[in-house]
Formats: sequence, C-alpha cells, structure tokens
Amino acid sequence: MSELVGAAIFGQSGGPTSVINSSAAGVIQEALKQKCITNVYGAAHGIKGILTEQFYDMSKEDPYELDLLKTTPSSALGSVRYKLKHFDEDETDYKKLLEVFKKYNIRYFFYNGGNDSMDTCNKVSKYMQKVGYECRVMGVPKTIDNDLFGTDHCPGYGSAAKYVATSTMEVYHDARVYDTGMITVLEVMGRNAGWLTAATALAAYKGNGPDLIYLPEIAFDMDKFLEETNKIYKENGKVIIAVSEGIKTADGKYIPELVASNLTKDSFGHAQLGGTASVLANIVKEKIAKKVRGIEFSLLQRAAAHVASATDVNEAYAAGQAAVQNAVEGKTDYMVAFERTEGAEYKCNIKLLNLTEVANTEKKIPREWINKEGNGLTEDFIKYALPLIQGESCPPLEDGLPRFAKLKKVLATK
Amino acid sequence: MSELVGAAIFGQSGGPTSVINSSAAGVIQEALKQKCITNVYGAAHGIKGILTEQFYDMSKEDPYELDLLKTTPSSALGSVRYKLKHFDEDETDYKKLLEVFKKYNIRYFFYNGGNDSMDTCNKVSKYMQKVGYECRVMGVPKTIDNDLFGTDHCPGYGSAAKYVATSTMEVYHDARVYDTGMITVLEVMGRNAGWLTAATALAAYKGNGPDLIYLPEIAFDMDKFLEETNKIYKENGKVIIAVSEGIKTADGKYIPELVASNLTKDSFGHAQLGGTASVLANIVKEKIAKKVRGIEFSLLQRAAAHVASATDVNEAYAAGQAAVQNAVEGKTDYMVAFERTEGAEYKCNIKLLNLTEVANTEKKIPREWINKEGNGLTEDFIKYALPLIQGESCPPLEDGLPRFAKLKKVLATK
Repeated sequence: MSELVGAAIFGQSGGPTSVINSSAAGVIQEALKQKCITNVYGAAHGIKGILTEQFYDMSKEDPYELDLLKTTPSSALGSVRYKLKHFDEDETDYKKLLEVFKKYNIRYFFYNGGNDSMDTCNKVSKYMQKVGYECRVMGVPKTIDNDLFGTDHCPGYGSAAKYVATSTMEVYHDARVYDTGMITVLEVMGRNAGWLTAATALAAYKGNGPDLIYLPEIAFDMDKFLEETNKIYKENGKVIIAVSEGIKTADGKYIPELVASNLTKDSFGHAQLGGTASVLANIVKEKIAKKVRGIEFSLLQRAAAHVASATDVNEAYAAGQAAVQNAVEGKTDYMVAFERTEGAEYKCNIKLLNLTEVANTEKKIPREWINKEGNGLTEDFIKYALPLIQGESCPPLEDGLPRFAKLKKVLATK
Repeated sequence: MSELVGAAIFGQSGGPTSVINSSAAGVIQEALKQKCITNVYGAAHGIKGILTEQFYDMSKEDPYELDLLKTTPSSALGSVRYKLKHFDEDETDYKKLLEVFKKYNIRYFFYNGGNDSMDTCNKVSKYMQKVGYECRVMGVPKTIDNDLFGTDHCPGYGSAAKYVATSTMEVYHDARVYDTGMITVLEVMGRNAGWLTAATALAAYKGNGPDLIYLPEIAFDMDKFLEETNKIYKENGKVIIAVSEGIKTADGKYIPELVASNLTKDSFGHAQLGGTASVLANIVKEKIAKKVRGIEFSLLQRAAAHVASATDVNEAYAAGQAAVQNAVEGKTDYMVAFERTEGAEYKCNIKLLNLTEVANTEKKIPREWINKEGNGLTEDFIKYALPLIQGESCPPLEDGLPRFAKLKKVLATK
C-alpha cells in the first residue's frame, strides 16, 4: 500500500437525515488528523460544489462546531440531487471534475448519500480509474429509507425509526382519548422499501402501535384494506393504520394517482409522492367512519435530531471515520457498510462493498419478515430493528433548545 | 374551615396535552394521601363518565404506574367534548350528577381542562351551591393554546411550545440544504390565540426560525402576506413561514374557507380547521415559487411527551396537587392559576381564580408583543415564553422507546 499525499474532498448528497452530519464529522475530523491529507475540503451542495469550485476549507472551522455536527440534523454543507450522465455518454462534467481535482491536488473523494449518490460516487471512481488519475474514492452510506444493498442497515435509518416509533406511540395515546370511533392513518416516508413504515411495528411491539401496516413490498389492494380496517373498527371503534407513502396497487399506481393522474417527478425521475394518508383518510371517511384523521410525519422524520438513536449517531460517525482510514490505507472504489455479528448482543462490524455492487440496487424487506396477511411485521423484523434505535442522543441544549453547529464556511481558493 | 369527609372525583376534558396526565398524577397522588378523602375516583371521559357512573377506583392502581402518568401524554382516563347546558335551561344532567355525587358521597370535584372545561366545572360548582349540596370544586387548567384568562400561562403550553420550537429549528435545517429556492409554510395549532404559533419565534431567536409569523390576533391580509413572502424569497431564496391554523381575513374568513366554504364544526360549534398550510402553500406555488412545502405539526404538538418541558411537567403536577390541598383546606369554586414573580429569575406562585372569571374567557397575545408589521414577535414575548420551555422531561425508556403508564382502570361500584 502506497502513501498518497493530497487533498480530500467530502460531499453530501440526497435527502438529509438526522445523522448525515455525524458522518461528516467522522470524515472531517479523521481527515484533519491524517498527515498524508494536506487539505480537507467540504463541497457545497455535493458534486455540484466540486463542479463549480464551491467548497469550504474545513480546517478553518472551530473544532467545537465540528464536534456539534454529530448532533446537527440535515446536510450542513448543503445537499444536491444531480444525476451525472455516464461518461461514455457525456464526458463534460467528468472533465471539469478532473480539472478541479488536479487544480487542488484532490486525491481523496468521500461521498455521503443513498442509492443515487453511490451511483455518482461509483461513476466518479470509474472515470478517475479510466483516465489514470490516482484518487481514492469511498462512499459513506446514508438514508432513512434503509434500502442500500449489502449492508445490514444504513446510518440515518435508526434515528428516523426511533422518531417514527416514538411519535406513533404518542399518536396512539392521543387517538384513544374519546369514547367515539376514530380511525387514524399515519403516512411514513419510503418510496420503494417499507423499512421506515415498518418501524411503526416497534410501537406495536410496545403495545402502542398501529393495527395495520401497509408496505410498498406488498401490492396494495383497496378492497382488502377497507375490509381489514372495517373489521377492526367494528370490533374496537379505534383503528390506527400506518402506510408507506410508496404503496402501490397491483397495476403499479400510487394512492394519490388513484384520484389525480398528474404526479410531479424529481430530477431522478422518481415520482414525488405525498398525500397518501389524506387520500386514504378520505376514502375511509366515505366508506367506514365519520372520524378519520390523516397524519403525515413529513420531513420531521428525517430531521428530528432531538430524538436520534445514539447507536445510529455513533455508527454514522464510525462510517465516516472508516472511509478515511481505509482510503489512507490504500482502499478505493468502496462503500463503507455494516455487518452484524452473530450472537444475542447487538454488534456491527464495518466492511467494504464494491461501489458497483451497491449503486442503484435497492434492498427491500424480506417477504418472510412481513406477516402472511401482508399487513404487519413479524418478530424477525422487531429483532432486526430494535437494536438500531437504542440509546439517546440529543444535541446539547441552550435555553432549552438544541444548539446546532454553526459553520463559518470559508471558501477554499487556489 | 370545616373538614369535609367524602370521596373525590377527577376528570379530564378537551384536547389532550403532553402534561395533562401530570396534573392527573398530582390530583390523584395528593388525594390518595388525604385522610378526609375516602375514595379517589377517576372519571372515564370526563363529565360523561360521571353521568354514566363510569369511573375508576384509583386506589387500585399500581403506584409506579400512577407515577408514570407524569410523563405519559394524552388523557389517560379518557377525555370528552360535552357541553353542559345551563341548569336554568335544562336540569337533567345536573340532577343525574347530584344523584351520583350523593350515591358515592362525592364531596370533591376536580376538573382538568381548558376554557370549555372550566365552563363545565363552573356550572357544576354553581349548581351544587344552588341545591345546597356541600362539595368542593376546583378547576385544574390545561391547554396547549395557553388562552386561559387570569393565569400567567397554562400547563400544556410549555411542552407544546418546546416541541414546536425544536421541530421548527429542525425543519429550518432541512429546508436549507438545496441551492434552489424553497418556501416552507408551517401550520401550528391555535384557534383564536396565537401563543403556540408564536413559539416558533423562539426558534427564530436561536437563529433557526421562521422569517414570517402570522397569528390569529392580526387580521390576515393575503396581498400583504404574498408581498412579504416574495420580498424575502427574492432576497434569500429561502423563506420559512409559520401560520396559526386560526388566522382569519379581516372579514372573518379562515384560510381553508377561501377555497372551500363547508367547514365542519365540533360539538362546541368551533370550526374544525386544518389545511391552512396546504392552502397557503398552493397559493404561494401559483404566485411566487415552484418549490413550496406545507407542513402541519398536527397532533404531535400536543402529544410529544418525549420532548416535554420539565418546567411544564412539574407545574402541571403542582397545579393538580394545589387543587386538592386547597379544596381540603376549605376552598371551592376556583381554578388553580399561576402568577409570575418579579425579578430576573423565573418563578411562578400558585394563586386561585374564581371559576366564573375564567370560564369562557380567552386570553390573546398582547398587541405590543407582536411586531409593528404584524408578522413576528417582540423581545417581550421571548422573555415571557423562554422560561416555560426549560428543562428536559422525557418518559423513562424501555427498549429505546417511552415507557408510558398502563392503568388497570378498575371500575368503581356501589
């Protein structure tokens, strides 16, 4: 393994999470310690900041503020949703990247994100290999969706799951106070994989959760849904239903599409969902009960650092650290991942996955973790998810409110 | 002061809060200690449970579970929205109440709720006086709306304010990650008084809050709103706006009424609002920017015990305790209230207010605490609200999730 001397750049990409900045802290603090890393840059808005030479000199930041990143939600450096074309198709962006890498002698590239970001990371890595520019590229996983392939779980998921489970327990209490019937439909994020919606099963496991859980892994059948809801309503008067924003009918239609056919799409071509709970609530109101409430956990589920999982915060940090350490040791073209050890006690080791393997591959909930009826989770899921939400991490407080990191963001120049 | 020996009954009424059960714990634990109180009953669903003889024997509960009530959100005994007619108009309910009071020798009546509940409490008190049934009646305040008259603030407000301010800070971080324009409209509960929406100003005070805050205290002017929003959007590209669900135009129309004229009403004749953020978001999308997001804090703001204010939890408990102590000492026909002492350090003493004074009277934000433009709060509000959100109270955890009280609810019989 040869020593590679040069600058490092780190970027954040995709939807924010409660702990993506903890990975940032892991990368930045570890990189600042490394002798072979001459400069540590933080790209403004991910790959876009590199293409436009907008990046910050992280050595100019107050170490205390860098430390606060561990408990500051969202992407402190700014995020981006920008899809790089393949370099065989259009080399423009890659040439610009190479130019910037050369100009600043960038030899380490760390990219923090989900599926799409790992695709970006992979393309950059392969291009640099192709043109023979020595550069070590490491992906750091992040997504509340938990849908990255090959890793036990993703940083970001545990905290979002803890928020969703905790909030569901609280909604459960609120939804039962009156002696009148009440149906509550909770909408949880998750476009194609139901991991986060499944976290409401943790609330059910504690006795304060939904009666029915519908995931995108199972084709959504409106008649079956209404029948199952009606049955519980008739028995108990109260029903709590958790649905993923991404549930689809057998013919591939999202719920909002059943009432409106003009969904907007984001720059990756993904349908912009939302409104699933309110559409279902209206249908239930029409068919079953007068009192129906639709609740969207909305973006709070990915930003609620005040109820983050300490396990998640620490693992996110460790993933960032490991990316730097492995790159310095000579590794490149990998994503940092987690492997759970056997045994009763939860422990995860870090492993490395080839970027090509993980980019654009989605991991869904195994069918056998979903109950036979397709409206709930099995004990296996509980065993899987419970360790990920353990431990309390909340930002230091000032005046009873979180003290989040304040970065100076000094632009690097050359 | 004469000793009055007999049973006590406690009921919860109106919308739940994070700390109404802390008041329940205060009343129940204190009442169980009093020698002159022979039985402690908890009414199922407030006044309705008394009318139907559905109440629980609180001495049958595990003391540990009663203690957990301090950190369990929502109304553990069940709540109700039931408006008692005046006894001059219809005595039916009152006769039934008297019959039940006599049957169980109920001599202490504690009622925990907001404006409407204090009205119920007052009517019961006056009726018992009228018919000469000796009974001590005390109201225990509760409302996230903070609109009860004559008290410095209401239990329930501090915790809801802490949730709203914390979540606003987190949304602020999430709303700034992309380098594209983005307008976020946050909707906060509050029908006629803007106290809870004003709590977003605490987030602004910490540098992570809304640019514009619209309260029901000020007539809402759509043109002015669009102009103010557009101005900030042009300057910064990012705008965060907090609105109360109860904002109304000068001619008395709620925002959802501007697009639909059929609002449903609850049993007190209050309009059931909601949708204010999404209606405004759609208008802003049409007139100003492409990327607009409407977020409703929804009922989580009144149920989020996981981020309750310790000050609030303790005061809610103290209010319940004080109700019992004062009643035992001979006081009746009062609501427990708070009086803030002068001086730099926050301290509130308990005082008693005549029920007639507080019932049905609403307290709004003083005009001088709202800025001249009517779109933000002044320093006076910050000084007022900040002490109320201090201290962290969160339920004990089990498996990383809240451990809420589980009551046996053994029905009392006679």
